[in-house]
Amino acid sequence: MLATLMYKAGDVRVETVPDAAIELPTDAVIRVTRACICGSDLWPYNDLEATPGGRAMGHEAIGVVEEVGSDVKRLERGQVVIMPFAFSDGSCMFCDEGLHTSCVHGGFFGVGNGGGAQAEALRIPLAEGTLFPLDIGEDDALMPSLLTLADVMGTGHHAAVSARVRPGASVAVIGDGAVGLCGVIAAKRLGAERIILLGRHAARIELARAFGATDVVSERDEAGIARIHALTSGFGVHSVLECVGSEQAIAMALGIVRPGGAIGRVGVPHYDVLPSARPSFYDNIHVAGGPAPVRAYIEQLLPDIVEGRIEPGRVFDRTIGLDAVPDGYRAMNAREALKVMVRP
Amino acid sequence: MLATLMYKAGDVRVETVPDAAIELPTDAVIRVTRACICGSDLWPYNDLEATPGGRAMGHEAIGVVEEVGSDVKRLERGQVVIMPFAFSDGSCMFCDEGLHTSCVHGGFFGVGNGGGAQAEALRIPLAEGTLFPLDIGEDDALMPSLLTLADVMGTGHHAAVSARVRPGASVAVIGDGAVGLCGVIAAKRLGAERIILLGRHAARIELARAFGATDVVSERDEAGIARIHALTSGFGVHSVLECVGSEQAIAMALGIVRPGGAIGRVGVPHYDVLPSARPSFYDNIHVAGGPAPVRAYIEQLLPDIVEGRIEPGRVFDRTIGLDAVPDGYRAMNAREALKVMVRP
Repeated sequence: MLATLMYKAGDVRVETVPDAAIELPTDAVIRVTRACICGSDLWPYNDLEATPGGRAMGHEAIGVVEEVGSDVKRLERGQVVIMPFAFSDGSCMFCDEGLHTSCVHGGFFGVGNGGGAQAEALRIPLAEGTLFPLDIGEDDALMPSLLTLADVMGTGHHAAVSARVRPGASVAVIGDGAVGLCGVIAAKRLGAERIILLGRHAARIELARAFGATDVVSERDEAGIARIHALTSGFGVHSVLECVGSEQAIAMALGIVRPGGAIGRVGVPHYDVLPSARPSFYDNIHVAGGPAPVRAYIEQLLPDIVEGRIEPGRVFDRTIGLDAVPDGYRAMNAREALKVMVRP
Repeated sequence: MLATLMYKAGDVRVETVPDAAIELPTDAVIRVTRACICGSDLWPYNDLEATPGGRAMGHEAIGVVEEVGSDVKRLERGQVVIMPFAFSDGSCMFCDEGLHTSCVHGGFFGVGNGGGAQAEALRIPLAEGTLFPLDIGEDDALMPSLLTLADVMGTGHHAAVSARVRPGASVAVIGDGAVGLCGVIAAKRLGAERIILLGRHAARIELARAFGATDVVSERDEAGIARIHALTSGFGVHSVLECVGSEQAIAMALGIVRPGGAIGRVGVPHYDVLPSARPSFYDNIHVAGGPAPVRAYIEQLLPDIVEGRIEPGRVFDRTIGLDAVPDGYRAMNAREALKVMVRP
């Protein structure tokens, strides 16, 4: 079968690899019907060291169950399923608490210890805990939005939940990538009154406004902080959704949050420490977030997609075949494309 | 009148100063009937640079209203009142949210911009918002416990609330000072099942056990972290109450918190950054806390004191007159005394 491998920064190849197969009785194999390229895939695209054998890429998919291991009872061949970016047993104490990304038996797709979803097929460990079956045809018109439940919509929601977005809240969203835009949807869905997007890209700003952003701030650093203070009577916002992960972004988040406010960080951190530990203490700032337990959020978010209240699938602005995945990385990295859907 | 001034590290003097007096129509003057020395006073006792004129010390008191400004309607001469360590107008948006320590017109006692409570009397800015009247005589037997509502009990409670202590939770309390011990009370009061005190001092450990601590860990750093992991099936605790404020203490907190868990920091930070920003991200750790809005907590905690369910006043193990305050600092700093009550 064909799968996407990254050999080093900038070097993405689609190659023939051994077919995905059941290895453990708790596995399933899915045929991937939709996958995508994630903003977080661009970190290794920019900094991966030479990796002999390559890293299997991709951690978001919708697929059709092709085969199940002997212990898998709650899934059957032919079912359409959402594959969250983390696999999890669904039964440990962390899964019970809804923190599937800390599952004691779990792990992550597309990072080396599991297969990658930018492929024709994929082995799914702990299939019963991991996969979320959908009662829907594999080419349903809702596929783009459903696919976002594998990561970006759940991650934007996690940012908003971690930032304690509440009805009437003022919210700032740092990052105009797909996660940031889904963060706008999530903040609006949780009742935020004012949603300030920090971004510069015209098409993304337009989409953010369609999703519910009320203001846009394009300035960065001190100028951006000053602008947000000016927009919020000098106090800053109740909730910051940090959807980038850079040192600059987390410093910005700490600069614009209001006393008693909260930062939900979902951008994979490329910083080692959280700065401003004293000012954030005196202002009673909450900092939370991490990898989103999207498996837990699918049930909460699905009705809003099925009933048309939210359309996160609008973040996809390009659809390609598997052969074009290397160019998809290039296009996303160049910010030509916002988010690329792959139809293997 | 007599008041306590600190001139530099180790140099505490009780001196005659001008009598406390009304300066603004929103002021009151209280005669201090009980004050105390705080663990946080030991930071300047160890590192204050030479301060010409001295710093007026003390930020916790119970007193009797002696005089009120012309705008003060809800207080009258002769009332016994609790004076929280921060003054606040009680009406701004932060006070409305229960975050009185961020009051837009507020400030702190005993830090230079207000008077100090280790004195015979004290001017109280924004008296109506700041003071909490008690319907009780000035020598009631509950005075020690009521006095803790000015700071340490409210601060321990804030640590527990910020660390999201819930019924059944496992909790670690870093610090066996008065705030840490009040944190034990607060954790127990909020339903924690297991409460691990990190401390070494026999008398304090005994009191912690009386307050509800189920385990004591005396090891520090890596050994302490390993011990707490051993006590918690390898996962760490749901909630950490960080009641010290040192670099070592916050690193310990991050080392013992369980995935999805929370740190409530109330120790005045003597560190500039929060370390371990990547591991705490992958584990979805919450970090919150800051100066406790004790004014907001008095109403919640008072019934438990009045009805005898909690006895935070047991943290006081020495009572002195104003003249002995310098020796009180010495004794607390030498850990001869846990917490010193002052009866001016």
